[in-house]
Amino acid sequence: MSTAGKPIECKAMVARAAKQPLSLETITVDPPKAGEVRVKVIANALCHTDIYTLDGLDPEGLFPSILGHEAGCIVESVGEGVTSVKPGDHVIPCYTPQCCSAQCIFCQSPKTNLCPAIRASQGKGLMPDGTTRFKDADGKPIYHFMGCSTMSEYTVLAEISCAKIDESAPLDRACLFGCGVSTGLGAVWNTCKVEVNSSVAVFGLGAVGLAVIQGAKMAGASKIIAVDINPKKFEAAKKMGATDTVDSTKLDKPVQQHIAGELTQWGVDYSFDCTGNVQVMRAALECAHRGWGESCVIGVAASGHEISTRPFQLVTGRVWKGTAFGGFKSRRDVPLLVNRYMSGQLPIDHYVTHEFDGVQGTNDAIDALHSGDCLRAVVKY
Amino acid sequence: MSTAGKPIECKAMVARAAKQPLSLETITVDPPKAGEVRVKVIANALCHTDIYTLDGLDPEGLFPSILGHEAGCIVESVGEGVTSVKPGDHVIPCYTPQCCSAQCIFCQSPKTNLCPAIRASQGKGLMPDGTTRFKDADGKPIYHFMGCSTMSEYTVLAEISCAKIDESAPLDRACLFGCGVSTGLGAVWNTCKVEVNSSVAVFGLGAVGLAVIQGAKMAGASKIIAVDINPKKFEAAKKMGATDTVDSTKLDKPVQQHIAGELTQWGVDYSFDCTGNVQVMRAALECAHRGWGESCVIGVAASGHEISTRPFQLVTGRVWKGTAFGGFKSRRDVPLLVNRYMSGQLPIDHYVTHEFDGVQGTNDAIDALHSGDCLRAVVKY
Repeated sequence: MSTAGKPIECKAMVARAAKQPLSLETITVDPPKAGEVRVKVIANALCHTDIYTLDGLDPEGLFPSILGHEAGCIVESVGEGVTSVKPGDHVIPCYTPQCCSAQCIFCQSPKTNLCPAIRASQGKGLMPDGTTRFKDADGKPIYHFMGCSTMSEYTVLAEISCAKIDESAPLDRACLFGCGVSTGLGAVWNTCKVEVNSSVAVFGLGAVGLAVIQGAKMAGASKIIAVDINPKKFEAAKKMGATDTVDSTKLDKPVQQHIAGELTQWGVDYSFDCTGNVQVMRAALECAHRGWGESCVIGVAASGHEISTRPFQLVTGRVWKGTAFGGFKSRRDVPLLVNRYMSGQLPIDHYVTHEFDGVQGTNDAIDALHSGDCLRAVVKY
Repeated sequence: MSTAGKPIECKAMVARAAKQPLSLETITVDPPKAGEVRVKVIANALCHTDIYTLDGLDPEGLFPSILGHEAGCIVESVGEGVTSVKPGDHVIPCYTPQCCSAQCIFCQSPKTNLCPAIRASQGKGLMPDGTTRFKDADGKPIYHFMGCSTMSEYTVLAEISCAKIDESAPLDRACLFGCGVSTGLGAVWNTCKVEVNSSVAVFGLGAVGLAVIQGAKMAGASKIIAVDINPKKFEAAKKMGATDTVDSTKLDKPVQQHIAGELTQWGVDYSFDCTGNVQVMRAALECAHRGWGESCVIGVAASGHEISTRPFQLVTGRVWKGTAFGGFKSRRDVPLLVNRYMSGQLPIDHYVTHEFDGVQGTNDAIDALHSGDCLRAVVKY
C-alpha cells in the first residue's frame, strides 16, 4: 500500500533540549508539499555539527528538533512540481542546496556553491513555506535541522537539496559525501585548488582533516604536514598521505613558527583549519607561505569567537579564505563524487570506524564520536 | 669632472628623531659598492609611510635616517658588477626589489613580487653589505630607509632596486610610480584582478584610494563606491570614476551594512582598505559579496593593531588578502607603467596637487600632506 500523500508514522531521535540525550520517539512525517521530497533514510553518519548543536553551543539551535545531515536516502514520494527525482531514486540530502535558477546569481556563478534560495527558512528550522513536516506524538511541531533532519526514519527535503546518485552505491558509505568528506576534499580541490608539488599543512585530524590529506595527496602535494594535539591520530594521517606529523602540544614555540621556519623555510603553500578553534585558524594562516600561501577555514567556530592576526600577514602575501561544503555545487557534484567512489578512484570506506543498527543507535554513535578514536559512526536504520 | 668613485657632498633632509622636523644638512654620500648604484634624485614625492616613520609610529623606525622612497632619479655612477643600468639612465627606486635570480623562488613565482633578497639589511636601514653610504658633517653614519632614502640630492640603491625607465618621461611625475599610485593600481589589476562589470568599494580616498578607483574604472568595474570620513575627498573620487560616495560618519549603521544591504544586495565583488585602520579593514571585508567577495588590505596598520572578524565571514565565501606595491614585480613592471603613462593610457598628473623646489622644500611638503587636501606633494631638487 503506497504511503504517498499520507502522513507516515516512524521512529526518530528527537533533540528535546540542549545537552540532553536524544529521545527515541514515534513521530509523524507529513507528505511533501510542492517542491518537496519525502525520503526514507537508510543510513546516517554523525557529524560534529550535529553534536555542536546538541551540546547547546549554537545560539541559533532550535529545540525540539531532529538533527542529522549526512545521510543516504531513498525517495518515498514527491510533492507537486518535483521533476528531478522520483520515488525509488537514491539521494544524498545536501544542507547546501543548488536551486539552479537562472535568477540565482550564486548558482549561476562558477565562484561559489552558496545557493541562498532556502537559507532563511532553513535557518529557522522550517521548510521553505515556513512550516514543519514533523509532529510528535502529542501533535506538536518539531523543527527541521540544516534542511536535512536525517535522524529519523523518514524526513522531508526540498527538491533543491536532493542530490540524485547512482543506485548501485551503498548508501551507508555514500552518505559520507553529504558533509565532512566532501568538505575536506573540496577545500583542497575547489576552494584552494592545490597544485602538484605543493606543500600543505592540516590542523585537526578528524574525518575532515583526513579528507583534506586525501585530497591533497590526490592533487599531488609533495609535503603534507598533519597537526593535532592527539598523537593517536597520526597513524591514520600517515596512511592517508601525511609526510610529516606534528604534536603541537610538544613544541617549545608556536606551531606556525615550527612549520614556517623548521619544517619549511617560508611556510606551506596551503593550510587548512579543521578544528573550529580560532587560535588554530590563526596559526594556520601564519604558517602559510610568504608571498602566496593560502589558508582555508573549514572548522566551525564557537559562537562569538573571532579570528585575528596582524594585517602584515596579509600584506606580505597570505590569503585567508574559507569553505562551506568544500565549494561543491551539491546537486551537480555529489553524484560525481559518488561515481568516483564507485569506480575505485576515491576510496572512503576507511572513514567509517563505527557502525550501529537502527535509528535508536544514534545515541551510541554520539558516544563513539566523543570517544576520540572515531572518524565516522554510521547508523543504519 | 666625474664624481664616480668619490664621495659626494650634497644636501639632504635628515630625520634626526621621531616627531621632529627634518633637518637640512650637508651629508657625504659614499660611492656605490659592488652591486650598487648611486643616483642623483631629481624629484621626490611624499608618501604617508615616510610620515608614519617620522611620527615615530613605526617601532622599527631608525634615527638618524634619510627618509623618502617615491622618487625619480638619474644614475650618477655604478658599482662593480652592475650591468642593468649605467650612468645617465633614468631610474625609479623601488623599495620592493626584484633580484631575478634563478634561485629566488619569489622572483621566479608568478604569484608574488616580494623578493626577499635584501630584506634583512633593508629593514635595518643598511645597504646589503650591512653598512651605510651616508655620513653627516661629523662623519657619523646615517641610516638608509626602505632601500631608497630619496630625501637627499644623492642616494645609493641596490642595483636590484633600480627600475630603468624611458628617459623621456618627466621624473617629477614618473616618481609617483615608486609607491602609492602603483600600489593602488596593482591591488586592482594584480592582487584582485577586478573584472569587467564588477562592483568595488574603496575605503580611504588619498592617492592610493584614488588609484584604486582609477584602476577599477580602467578594469571596467561598473559600480565603484568611494568611502571616506571627509566629504571633501568625494569630488576627486567622482572625477576618477566613483559611482557612489559614502561619508561613513553620517550613517546610522555600520558602513559594511550600508554597502551590503542598501547600496548593493549582497556586497561588493572587491573591496580595498586604503586607510591602515584595522576597523576599516574589517568593514571592507564584511562588505564583500557573500560567496566570492575579495577584500584587499593596502593600508599599513599601526604597530600592534590586529584585524579580526568572525570566521563565518570567510566560510561564507569572502577572501581576505593584502598587497605590497600592488603585486608589481618592480624592475619588470614599473617601466611598463611609465610607458603606459607616456602613451596617454594611464594619466597620473592629477595626483600632484602640490609642488616644491629644492630638497629643503620637503618640510613644506610634509605640512601640505598633513593638510588633508593634498594627494601627492612633489619636491623637485
